[in-house]
Amino acid sequence: MAKEYIDFETLKYLLYDVHQLEEILQQDRFTDHDAASLDMFLDSVKEFSDRELFPYVKEMDEKPAYYKDGAVVVHEQVGVIMKKGGEMGLISGTFDYDAGGLQMPMMAYTASAFIQDAANNHLPGYVGLTLGAAELIVHFGSKELNDTYVPNMISGDWGGTMCLTEPQAGSSLSDVVTKAVPTNNGHYKISGQKIFISGGDHQYADNFVHLVLARIEGAPAGTKGISLFVVPKKRPDGNGGLVPNDVTTVADFQKLGQRGYCTTHLGFGDAGDCQGWLVGEAHQGLKYMFLMMNGARIAVGRGAAAIATAAYHASLQYAKERPQGRKLTSSGKKDLETGQTLIINHPDVRRMLLQQKVVSEGSLSLVLLASKYYDLKETLQDPSEKEKYALLLELIIPMVKTYPSEMGAQAVSNGLQVLGGYGFCTDFILQQYHRDIRIFPIYEGTTGIQSQDLLGRKLLMENGKALELLTAEVMQTIQEASKYDDLRVYAGKLGEKLKLTQKVISFLVGFAQKGDYERFLSDATPFMEFFGNITMAWVWLDIAIHAKGALITGEKTHSEDFYESKIHAMKFFFKYELPKTIGLAEILMDEEVLTIAGEKELFI
Amino acid sequence: MAKEYIDFETLKYLLYDVHQLEEILQQDRFTDHDAASLDMFLDSVKEFSDRELFPYVKEMDEKPAYYKDGAVVVHEQVGVIMKKGGEMGLISGTFDYDAGGLQMPMMAYTASAFIQDAANNHLPGYVGLTLGAAELIVHFGSKELNDTYVPNMISGDWGGTMCLTEPQAGSSLSDVVTKAVPTNNGHYKISGQKIFISGGDHQYADNFVHLVLARIEGAPAGTKGISLFVVPKKRPDGNGGLVPNDVTTVADFQKLGQRGYCTTHLGFGDAGDCQGWLVGEAHQGLKYMFLMMNGARIAVGRGAAAIATAAYHASLQYAKERPQGRKLTSSGKKDLETGQTLIINHPDVRRMLLQQKVVSEGSLSLVLLASKYYDLKETLQDPSEKEKYALLLELIIPMVKTYPSEMGAQAVSNGLQVLGGYGFCTDFILQQYHRDIRIFPIYEGTTGIQSQDLLGRKLLMENGKALELLTAEVMQTIQEASKYDDLRVYAGKLGEKLKLTQKVISFLVGFAQKGDYERFLSDATPFMEFFGNITMAWVWLDIAIHAKGALITGEKTHSEDFYESKIHAMKFFFKYELPKTIGLAEILMDEEVLTIAGEKELFI
Repeated sequence: MAKEYIDFETLKYLLYDVHQLEEILQQDRFTDHDAASLDMFLDSVKEFSDRELFPYVKEMDEKPAYYKDGAVVVHEQVGVIMKKGGEMGLISGTFDYDAGGLQMPMMAYTASAFIQDAANNHLPGYVGLTLGAAELIVHFGSKELNDTYVPNMISGDWGGTMCLTEPQAGSSLSDVVTKAVPTNNGHYKISGQKIFISGGDHQYADNFVHLVLARIEGAPAGTKGISLFVVPKKRPDGNGGLVPNDVTTVADFQKLGQRGYCTTHLGFGDAGDCQGWLVGEAHQGLKYMFLMMNGARIAVGRGAAAIATAAYHASLQYAKERPQGRKLTSSGKKDLETGQTLIINHPDVRRMLLQQKVVSEGSLSLVLLASKYYDLKETLQDPSEKEKYALLLELIIPMVKTYPSEMGAQAVSNGLQVLGGYGFCTDFILQQYHRDIRIFPIYEGTTGIQSQDLLGRKLLMENGKALELLTAEVMQTIQEASKYDDLRVYAGKLGEKLKLTQKVISFLVGFAQKGDYERFLSDATPFMEFFGNITMAWVWLDIAIHAKGALITGEKTHSEDFYESKIHAMKFFFKYELPKTIGLAEILMDEEVLTIAGEKELFI
Repeated sequence: MAKEYIDFETLKYLLYDVHQLEEILQQDRFTDHDAASLDMFLDSVKEFSDRELFPYVKEMDEKPAYYKDGAVVVHEQVGVIMKKGGEMGLISGTFDYDAGGLQMPMMAYTASAFIQDAANNHLPGYVGLTLGAAELIVHFGSKELNDTYVPNMISGDWGGTMCLTEPQAGSSLSDVVTKAVPTNNGHYKISGQKIFISGGDHQYADNFVHLVLARIEGAPAGTKGISLFVVPKKRPDGNGGLVPNDVTTVADFQKLGQRGYCTTHLGFGDAGDCQGWLVGEAHQGLKYMFLMMNGARIAVGRGAAAIATAAYHASLQYAKERPQGRKLTSSGKKDLETGQTLIINHPDVRRMLLQQKVVSEGSLSLVLLASKYYDLKETLQDPSEKEKYALLLELIIPMVKTYPSEMGAQAVSNGLQVLGGYGFCTDFILQQYHRDIRIFPIYEGTTGIQSQDLLGRKLLMENGKALELLTAEVMQTIQEASKYDDLRVYAGKLGEKLKLTQKVISFLVGFAQKGDYERFLSDATPFMEFFGNITMAWVWLDIAIHAKGALITGEKTHSEDFYESKIHAMKFFFKYELPKTIGLAEILMDEEVLTIAGEKELFI
């Protein structure tokens, strides 16, 4: 078993030095917090994760959640995280005081959740979805819904879920058919099936509060006819008790990874007695859901970054302890005189470890940046500043979800490879992380869907204003980096990539302007890879600037080696990752059309 | 469950049309075979695979091999493939008549094994390693060893294994410490531990014949002191019976994938009574092993190509049956009027399927090409022709092992993604293939080791003669393609890549010439990706030439759509895969050194 799953020093470096959490704390909303109090919070989360999460990560995989007699049975640590999570504010940390929260910045919350995800990615989802469901009620629900459900959720006594996917519709929410029929008693009668419901049932919550997308009888077709309902597993009986609400646990999906995190199939209203309460206005369900979606997508990126981080530290530890092979002599022969070398000294192993490092630390930095934008757009007073950060968040969110997921999976695979044959064996944790992380490119909108969102919606939104704002941020980083002699060359490279990006975008947008949307979006996924890669080069250059600044000014809170290692990692990203964008640009600007369905049968 | 795991028509197209199996059959060795008899053989293997292999692929994963009371217990189909494999010639197909074989071309054998691998990758290894072990005895063993062991192995009654890896040495065979002490009775006393022994023990063989690398007492250090021994689990007692030979099954490794294919830890001579017989001469063990290694590496590439193929067909079938989402209208909105479309009509899904197609069919073609080179170097009479194909085989072998493994794993991951959330669920086979294929970049020399072999040994061997020969082959394909109007542009692209390759190689070789071998080889893995990708572009252009030729001459053995689909796939490779080489070339020719261990601690 690996000894460590994160590098706490790097997390704090990114949080305080690079992303300047203390600036955020200047906002009125956060007056009760300071660096010392948040440090104490993070330390307590680390201590909790060391004790209650990390020791069970392998066991939760080996003894997965299962379905029995109409219910799902999960590992007992689910009970611990629900209860302790409620007590520690892990569910309601970012909520208003009024809603029972701690008014914590999203940045600090993200850092705390990252620690938990890295310790044991099977557990934090249980509180995370409870948070998400409660947040929907807090923001859009009536006072009655708030009073009835939210306190029990943020205490961790009741679980919360998001019920979007249906068997026949998958990602296509336009085709949701779960039905809501109005009654005269203020509630609706709900009927339908929902699948892939994370945390949808288990023995450690007294009740479950499902936030369900459904279509009110007679509603318009497509996404404009979807409403949001609170559908509890047990409903209040009016006398302070609870009675069953005709919500059935049909099955628990058995999965490749995250096997301790249950994924249920729920049936609503099989017996015609399932009651649901409308959240906010009719037909606005998808809008509400998507307002909350940014948080969910930050959470997915964060989880993937966390698994990649844990995998990096596990393979790093192995590489530092495992002797194997020899260094090469100047004649190109293996040196048989001296003993075996540690595998960390082989360049190919270092290459794999550095790739893991740039992906995992870079992903964490991106996720914290998104959290910072989130905090700024929520708390800034000036409307145009508020809008600026809202737009920046909207633009980067598909990458925040996708880059850690896609590249994190590749990084974990490198981690497995570092261990050679042992990496494939269940005695080591890498094979589990390889399975666990594979859901992240699918969660909360697949990579294909995120890519269409990025290219088809976010780039063009408000006449490209979000893109202009992001470009300005990147330009500023380039200017700052140019001040340092040994960063200037990287600043120059990023500047060139910015120009290339503009070229690629104007080529692609040409298709949209001609009304050929299918062609416009057909290579959205390679575009995501292209744009995400360049965004990460920016993220790394920013990390390097802060390191360089500390080295030069001497205002060091870390060791010299620590700062140098961050600059080295940036260089690694620019040498080994960034060049991929040249080929991607060629793909994206190739006139040949090969993936749009035509009359020819291609799959023979 | 998917209905089909290969496309038999494509297999035959590659075998007969592209790689011209019938040319090979002109050689004296193969006079008893013709296309009709080999077709019949392949049909019987397909029928056998349909009936005895494919139906058990999921069950073998769900009920993995396990260790109990000093022995390994495997699925009962292991007994079927050992017995039937022996009867059908699946073990000795390529052997000389004298050695009990069928003198079948390697090309036909590879095709037959590909079918089995695709049907159920957990099973063919049992006969494959028995074949490999028997082959070593046939080629290098004494008559007595041959008479004692080979007939029982090729009948499938006795299993065979290759015992290379030791716990302390991993890939580093220089550090093998298993000991062989001479006796006066013609045998050696063997003692040591071997791990990761595929098919090392099970209940369906009467005996096991282990081919063990060990060091004779007093032998030189490093790989020059390694000898090869036959070490049976039970040794002949001199009276026609067998007695235990002090070979202990210590454990069965539990793994991420290929869980039905046991991977054992064997102890030799724990009680001081383990006898081994030297194969060939002392200290020549590694040389013998490596002469057989080409076959083993073709087998690994073939297995990975086969899993990628099975995954492609499973996801293709799903994409053709699953309705989800809408086509985009010319206003960029989803079309809500008509019904849902099948997901195969979404460009992003087609892109993933086509990527799977080019990787799986291209890998199969590469594997068949290697088999053809193998047949030619074995059977041609003219020494310079013989040498030509031997060198071509040596050069491509690291790619034959690596490209299907690395890119096959990416293709399978795309297959899983095609299924969305269902791809992550154990109800579908994709998640299993995702696990099964992950061992292939590790098997028989990891990707890092193959890459060092390619760049450090093969490119430079015989003063670069192998590279010259391969370049000439590629040039010939370019010339042929240039004859066709609509292939000319691709021929031109490949020509440019050839020039780029020369530039990259001369840049890298510069380091070797300066004696800086560590730098020379430090980016061997990106070089493998670069060179492998360009090699595959050649493979695909060759496939397209044969398709185009058939379309133009009208000598069609397949439908017009079939040929068109192959040309389309080639175009897809050139558009979506080949451009990666631009970025790789930039990485390889970057002067910055970032992965060679120095004094600085980078991993903080």
